[in-house]
Amino acid sequence: MNIFWQEFPVIAEALEKVSGIIQDICASQNPIIAEGVSALFDGKGKLLRPGMLLLAANFGKKQDKHLKLAACLEILHMATLVHDDVIDDSPLRRGVPAAHVRFGKRDAVLIGDYLLSRCFLLAAEYTSAVNAVNLGKLLSRMCAMEIEQNADRFSSVMNLRRYLKKIMGKSAILFSLACHVGSSEAKAPKNVTEKLRRAGYDIGMAFQIIDDMLDYSGNADAVGKPLGNDIKEGFVTLPLICAMMQDVSGILRSFFSKPSFTVDDPELIIKLVCENGGIEGARAYAEIYTNRAIREIAQLPNGEARDMLEKLALKLLRRDR
Amino acid sequence: MNIFWQEFPVIAEALEKVSGIIQDICASQNPIIAEGVSALFDGKGKLLRPGMLLLAANFGKKQDKHLKLAACLEILHMATLVHDDVIDDSPLRRGVPAAHVRFGKRDAVLIGDYLLSRCFLLAAEYTSAVNAVNLGKLLSRMCAMEIEQNADRFSSVMNLRRYLKKIMGKSAILFSLACHVGSSEAKAPKNVTEKLRRAGYDIGMAFQIIDDMLDYSGNADAVGKPLGNDIKEGFVTLPLICAMMQDVSGILRSFFSKPSFTVDDPELIIKLVCENGGIEGARAYAEIYTNRAIREIAQLPNGEARDMLEKLALKLLRRDR
Repeated sequence: MNIFWQEFPVIAEALEKVSGIIQDICASQNPIIAEGVSALFDGKGKLLRPGMLLLAANFGKKQDKHLKLAACLEILHMATLVHDDVIDDSPLRRGVPAAHVRFGKRDAVLIGDYLLSRCFLLAAEYTSAVNAVNLGKLLSRMCAMEIEQNADRFSSVMNLRRYLKKIMGKSAILFSLACHVGSSEAKAPKNVTEKLRRAGYDIGMAFQIIDDMLDYSGNADAVGKPLGNDIKEGFVTLPLICAMMQDVSGILRSFFSKPSFTVDDPELIIKLVCENGGIEGARAYAEIYTNRAIREIAQLPNGEARDMLEKLALKLLRRDR
Repeated sequence: MNIFWQEFPVIAEALEKVSGIIQDICASQNPIIAEGVSALFDGKGKLLRPGMLLLAANFGKKQDKHLKLAACLEILHMATLVHDDVIDDSPLRRGVPAAHVRFGKRDAVLIGDYLLSRCFLLAAEYTSAVNAVNLGKLLSRMCAMEIEQNADRFSSVMNLRRYLKKIMGKSAILFSLACHVGSSEAKAPKNVTEKLRRAGYDIGMAFQIIDDMLDYSGNADAVGKPLGNDIKEGFVTLPLICAMMQDVSGILRSFFSKPSFTVDDPELIIKLVCENGGIEGARAYAEIYTNRAIREIAQLPNGEARDMLEKLALKLLRRDR
């Protein structure tokens, strides 16, 4: 059973089926694709986006196609991760070598494309044309935001506003879509779907902030990749932005005094971020988004579905991996 | 007006509209995407796949959505080219620097993903669910075939059968789908659609063979990229396979006597391929596929649409760029 979802047995059980669907849909006679797929979907992922889609479906009439759509979103997420890892040169993904390390960048780009093709195939078959178009638009926005993020690498001009816009485009909108698709395809009332869409957005924002925080303060073994990856790659994230605002000594700010910066000693930056309240600052923002999500959730119809969603939002805030 | 299609004024005119749709659909506020898109769709492309889709639509009742679907296929084609160029490290595309040279590999991967998202968005909106699923399946097959092709790089085990299978998966199926989608979305009779699908497949096979031939014998300026790219990257294509079969001296074969080969002197290999009938051998295969296409076309309903398709098949066989 999926460890992350063990407190939500109904969802955990459904996610077992989703995993099976992912394996079936992504199966290939090509040995490299087959190996890539089985490494990516090894059962250790949280399956967060599919889980949220299924939770949102509980507010209407859940159908078999929800399992397919849940699979679709996880495959999309994985495709973007494979391409991200190629782009960022990340050596590890969930503690095992990333696809491009195993198969080379050539095949990793193609495995990502293959996954995108499987995702769209599921969307075309199981969702309304409107939701399929929305999925296409979502991927467009995610790509545009990643490109913006690349342009900001090693640039000192990053600030809170830019950061929040970025994590919205690269992460929160997928959580938001998960809730929207789950609810709308379950024919939940429109105002419920709209509230779920917003709650998904806020949960996604908090999720990404915690992710970026764990890159500074997490346990590398638990997170499954080395710490300080973001700053090594030149990405300025929220803990650093928060720490700079509180940096009394000015040492941390001095590294970022020119329009572009270099990272000679990432360990020192991590240390200074932790010493200058960067972790607490980032966590405070994650709490703001989580609380906003919980206020949205409180307006949803009373019942088990609502309780589960609230529990999930809080669990994601407190996670250490 | 598109030079390639000037003998087909009705198609040329429709392709002007298709170019406009491509620009509209791929427009982005992100300056890198905007620049990438305008460089890729600069009006110099042949727009072959959209043109074939529109030709095939003439066998039924052509509709406005055919223009959108034609745009969709060209965008898909361009997305695969952008990723191919990243993968192959090709410096040029149509005589101008490839996307990854202009923007770096990070952004080129993302521009390709962006284009895929736009392609699926169009498919979701304007084609039947069945055709959208087919588009997804097609991309899956293209990826699998590219991965197989990568595995065969610098391998001497390449032979005619493997080569034909490869160009089928990476090229012919897209031509085939263009004809199928054009015809089926125009509600042409099923047997007509089926014949068009086969003719498209054969035209695509001939097209790719000529492409591979031009990599040995073309005029680099006309083709828009340096010659000998395939062999430098370790890809064994039909001219080399044909030349090896006829290589009396055995010099050419000696380079490929071990399971894997290196390419120290690509110019020498190009020279030996030309001297040993590799060009003529490849052209003969292109003729076989073109003739097969023409036999299929001859069975289609009499009329202008049929004449145009035949003319196109012959034009593609004789092209020098």
